[in-house]
Amino acid sequence: MALIVQKFGGSSVADAESIKRVAKRIVQTKKAGNDVVVAVSAMGDTTDELVDLAHSVTPIPAGRELDMLLTAGERISMALLAMAIKSLGVEASSYTGSQAGMLTDAQHGKARIVDVTPKRVREALDAGHVAIVAGFQGFNRTTGEITTLGRGGSDTTAVALAAALDADVCEIYTDVDGIFTADPRVVPKAKKVDRITSEEMLELAASGAKVLYIRAVEYARRHGVTLHVRSSFSNAEGTIVYNPAEGETVEEPIITGIAGDLSEGKITVVGVPDTPGKAAEIFTIVARAGANIDMIVQNVSEAVTGRTDISFTLPKDQGQGVLTALEVAKADIGYEGIQYDDQIGKLALVGAGMRTNAGVSAALFRALHEASINIEMISTSEIRISVVTRADTLNEAMRVVHAAFGLDADQEAVVYAGTGR
Amino acid sequence: MALIVQKFGGSSVADAESIKRVAKRIVQTKKAGNDVVVAVSAMGDTTDELVDLAHSVTPIPAGRELDMLLTAGERISMALLAMAIKSLGVEASSYTGSQAGMLTDAQHGKARIVDVTPKRVREALDAGHVAIVAGFQGFNRTTGEITTLGRGGSDTTAVALAAALDADVCEIYTDVDGIFTADPRVVPKAKKVDRITSEEMLELAASGAKVLYIRAVEYARRHGVTLHVRSSFSNAEGTIVYNPAEGETVEEPIITGIAGDLSEGKITVVGVPDTPGKAAEIFTIVARAGANIDMIVQNVSEAVTGRTDISFTLPKDQGQGVLTALEVAKADIGYEGIQYDDQIGKLALVGAGMRTNAGVSAALFRALHEASINIEMISTSEIRISVVTRADTLNEAMRVVHAAFGLDADQEAVVYAGTGR
Repeated sequence: MALIVQKFGGSSVADAESIKRVAKRIVQTKKAGNDVVVAVSAMGDTTDELVDLAHSVTPIPAGRELDMLLTAGERISMALLAMAIKSLGVEASSYTGSQAGMLTDAQHGKARIVDVTPKRVREALDAGHVAIVAGFQGFNRTTGEITTLGRGGSDTTAVALAAALDADVCEIYTDVDGIFTADPRVVPKAKKVDRITSEEMLELAASGAKVLYIRAVEYARRHGVTLHVRSSFSNAEGTIVYNPAEGETVEEPIITGIAGDLSEGKITVVGVPDTPGKAAEIFTIVARAGANIDMIVQNVSEAVTGRTDISFTLPKDQGQGVLTALEVAKADIGYEGIQYDDQIGKLALVGAGMRTNAGVSAALFRALHEASINIEMISTSEIRISVVTRADTLNEAMRVVHAAFGLDADQEAVVYAGTGR
Repeated sequence: MALIVQKFGGSSVADAESIKRVAKRIVQTKKAGNDVVVAVSAMGDTTDELVDLAHSVTPIPAGRELDMLLTAGERISMALLAMAIKSLGVEASSYTGSQAGMLTDAQHGKARIVDVTPKRVREALDAGHVAIVAGFQGFNRTTGEITTLGRGGSDTTAVALAAALDADVCEIYTDVDGIFTADPRVVPKAKKVDRITSEEMLELAASGAKVLYIRAVEYARRHGVTLHVRSSFSNAEGTIVYNPAEGETVEEPIITGIAGDLSEGKITVVGVPDTPGKAAEIFTIVARAGANIDMIVQNVSEAVTGRTDISFTLPKDQGQGVLTALEVAKADIGYEGIQYDDQIGKLALVGAGMRTNAGVSAALFRALHEASINIEMISTSEIRISVVTRADTLNEAMRVVHAAFGLDADQEAVVYAGTGR
């Protein structure tokens, strides 16, 4: 008998029929002899609708009250799901984040989990019940206040519960069959990956792959939780995201997958005096503007002028704020100009195998060159190579790179509508 | 400085605009120098919609889960109301039933309040905040479970908070101007009553007046809470429902008001053997069928047959169950037949003054006789006389009795749409 945590997102519980379908699936798992804990998101677009409602009352909703409001969403879905399971003859009880012991810090809207004390969940399991836990929500013990975990919070709830309960696996149900070597909507010959390390998954998620949230993968990696990303529409095996033991040698393909990202823009600070501390000055300002920068490239200084250019990428919606902050500091920094480019595409090639394989970069650059796709920026980590191209060449770049690294399947993948969040 | 509890029902917070209007009203009260605690219902028809959603998932929703589901309703309205108040520059915090210390027994769907420990509400008031409390919901300390108080629960929440906080007044906001001498939609010349004792209010509520729930009035009476029933659409004074001090002599009108009720039916058990214990036998069966009987009339026994007829009224939706239960026991009881009449109307005349005024019954019967309205049953209490008529004569009966007792106003009352629940 295993202890299985299952996470169902909003699209899996969008209406009464979906809830009944999910309930059947949970009952199957339970009847197969497993203990089952479920983390569930709010139904369909409920969270967005509640946010809209808040904005129709006040332009800037207070964080405490917004969390109080949004947590109504999972309260509805979890209660309905528990009812549906009980009507199939299996005992089930729903628990709010606070009842399930999801203890967080006090940051409304983006609380971090500080401890999980799932006493009532354990009691429910001991009594033979399926325990349904509200995703996305927590509780701060010091203030006594309800909190929410921010984007992707339900994934994190599921993983945190799996860690605290020492579950055998944390199943993340979505509307795709698992993790693919690339987005099948862009690369039709993308293949489902059977197994991937959490480190690779992190790089893919950070590079724009949308199936799992970075934060949940980080939590799973840190706490040794095995994830199983699979479809709520079929019983097929999905993708196992695992944590290799220390020193474990795994027979891996060189490249696990590629990800594309059109959500970023590029800022170039032109003519920065090439004196010590200038980069630090710039990125201190960028950090204070609250931006999450990704790739950074500094050109070689020109001997004649003693000046250099610094480029970095960041989410488009943070672009204007950072531009303004840098403009204000123009005289202090002493740069000559600033450029903003929101027509870039970012391609990332991820694979633990590339650590020991020279020539991956060369093969990547050759494939892009042969397709006449220009590379504008490059950055590398031990298991990832990212390049920036023009936005309108990104999809073509993904297809040629996917083929060049032998990832193409024989058949085209089946693509479902929606994104599974 | 006074401490005022205000209760706003679902129709007062049906949408963003209504919530903003209610927020302004609360801010006015606060800025006038009062401490303000607000009990709020779910928005508009939210509760009914959630019940429908539950029934779309399972025919018989589990009580625990239904309470978990329904309590999402007030969570939404209270958070939005707190945001709206804060956006007007007044600090406000919302509290669930459990956070506000509404401790109940463990009966899901119809929990009774066993204690109110509003520590966090007091702290909010001490910090200068308006405290918004979710109506209708509570918490059982032994089981750790969320409960709901059943129909009219938000009125009860408001009154219970007023009692626990020793509030100066509990204002019940509704969509009518207060308590009227009769329903203005039936009796156009009905007058608003300025003051009424809680005892009279109880009799009116029990007789079909729909502005206040019996349970809330009972709680107010038992705990000495003064209610002020008033319109959320105007600043006019409404009706004060007060508790006269022991031995207090009040200069009162003989009759405070009249109520009509079309929701009951009448069962007549015909030819019951007139032997001791037969009535007890019948009403034991009726009670076991879960019926709330109201008036009971037993005819004088016929000397020839030694049999009598027993009639009683009960809510129409309980009629079929009781009929079946009595049919089953027919042989045991030995009655001859049974009749069910769902075309009755019940008129109640209420007034503490009638205690000391002979002739009220006579005046009532005379007024109905002059209007050719037949009386089918009569029952009396110290401050109430109820009669049963044909359903289709009830409204006419209300108008003639209203006039006969000098209750008619010079002008017709303004009638709002809706019922204010």
